Amino acid sequence: MESQKRRAGRPPKPVLGRGLIAQQALQLVVADGLERFTMSHLAKKLGVAVSALYNHVANKADVVLLIQDELVSQVSVDGMLRLVAHQTTLEDALRDWARSYRAVFAEYPSLIPLIAVTPISDAPQTLRMYNVVTQAVASAGIPDADVMRVIIAFESFLFGSAMDVNAPPTIFDTRDSAMESAWLQRVVNTSMGGAAAESDDADSGADEPAAKNPYAEEPFQFGLEALIQATLMLVASRN
Amino acid sequence: MESQKRRAGRPPKPVLGRGLIAQQALQLVVADGLERFTMSHLAKKLGVAVSALYNHVANKADVVLLIQDELVSQVSVDGMLRLVAHQTTLEDALRDWARSYRAVFAEYPSLIPLIAVTPISDAPQTLRMYNVVTQAVASAGIPDADVMRVIIAFESFLFGSAMDVNAPPTIFDTRDSAMESAWLQRVVNTSMGGAAAESDDADSGADEPAAKNPYAEEPFQFGLEALIQATLMLVASRN
Repeated sequence: MESQKRRAGRPPKPVLGRGLIAQQALQLVVADGLERFTMSHLAKKLGVAVSALYNHVANKADVVLLIQDELVSQVSVDGMLRLVAHQTTLEDALRDWARSYRAVFAEYPSLIPLIAVTPISDAPQTLRMYNVVTQAVASAGIPDADVMRVIIAFESFLFGSAMDVNAPPTIFDTRDSAMESAWLQRVVNTSMGGAAAESDDADSGADEPAAKNPYAEEPFQFGLEALIQATLMLVASRN
Repeated sequence: MESQKRRAGRPPKPVLGRGLIAQQALQLVVADGLERFTMSHLAKKLGVAVSALYNHVANKADVVLLIQDELVSQVSVDGMLRLVAHQTTLEDALRDWARSYRAVFAEYPSLIPLIAVTPISDAPQTLRMYNVVTQAVASAGIPDADVMRVIIAFESFLFGSAMDVNAPPTIFDTRDSAMESAWLQRVVNTSMGGAAAESDDADSGADEPAAKNPYAEEPFQFGLEALIQATLMLVASRN
């Protein structure tokens, strides 16, 4: 981004604008948390006066919108666009979108509770994503009245799955073989040992980072396919 | 809780212990955020010296464990216990547990990213919940190797659904009828208008608070039933 702005005759410093503000605000919120985020911290990080910042953003809530839009703009809707063009199936489009969505938010788990409750009306990239996804899903045969419940159910699962990517592999370890946790230990030893052995084989998609938690992939696949199958049933029930 | 501790011969002030520390720490973290939570703030809130606090908890991480355990102890496993006793079905036990789980965490959305990555080994109530749930699900016919993936997939969905309960009903409103959001507006008007009209009829379970977001119930039901059906398929495929 910076190199694009360094044109002849321009100063080497990137020009202050909503794009640059979004990127720097994102870094600041990830580092310090939203509670400690202030407009004056942001101005300092950008090397500008607070008054210059207010030429581009109205207030802290406006910056949260910019951060949301910056994150959502990273989610790929390529599969959804192919679905609109009849070049892929509903299930593959949902799978691609869901994997990209989870991968983006897995990088920013602390922001998920914020993004999950931020209205989208003033976030243009976010509006675009929802518009493409709703068009694709509706065009594929999901009744209009069901489209939002499908998308929101996927998102709920994707937000939670993005957090699970950041869980430590030891999250379900138990300290000893006490009776009180005998069943838990039995299934954890069976399934999560299996997941560890298989993790090298997992084909987790090109735009996905290496999973931090090797046990996050199998539950994600199970839940994702459950949601996809239920969604396909909505199409089938209409036909 | 306080009244139980006010027995004859005891001082009126509740006795300092891990239960009381957990409750007060939970209130403090919800009010101020985890970043600003300190042991000295907690001691002040409890009206004790910091040194007295350290007689019961080792450090901030230990307090986080207490908070986790306090929250998880509120999740009902009654349905799972009935399943173990062959008094209910797998699908009803999953439904009851999931509804209670979502309702508890919907009260504390800011803590979800923390709880989602906190190991459970030193949290006795949390260990108990997982042990009951794994016993019930495995006893109902889910293969040992699949139990954890089912539970984790449910939890990912439940964490996200708990956050959606706190989303404003206007989250998908669009400001105008611009072409860029035409599809989104169409499905939002169709489905979320419908959800609003039906929200009075929704039977959302006895232990669930009134939904803050009237549009959270339908996506939750869709995703929950999708996961339940996929789970029942695991039993069917083994038989």
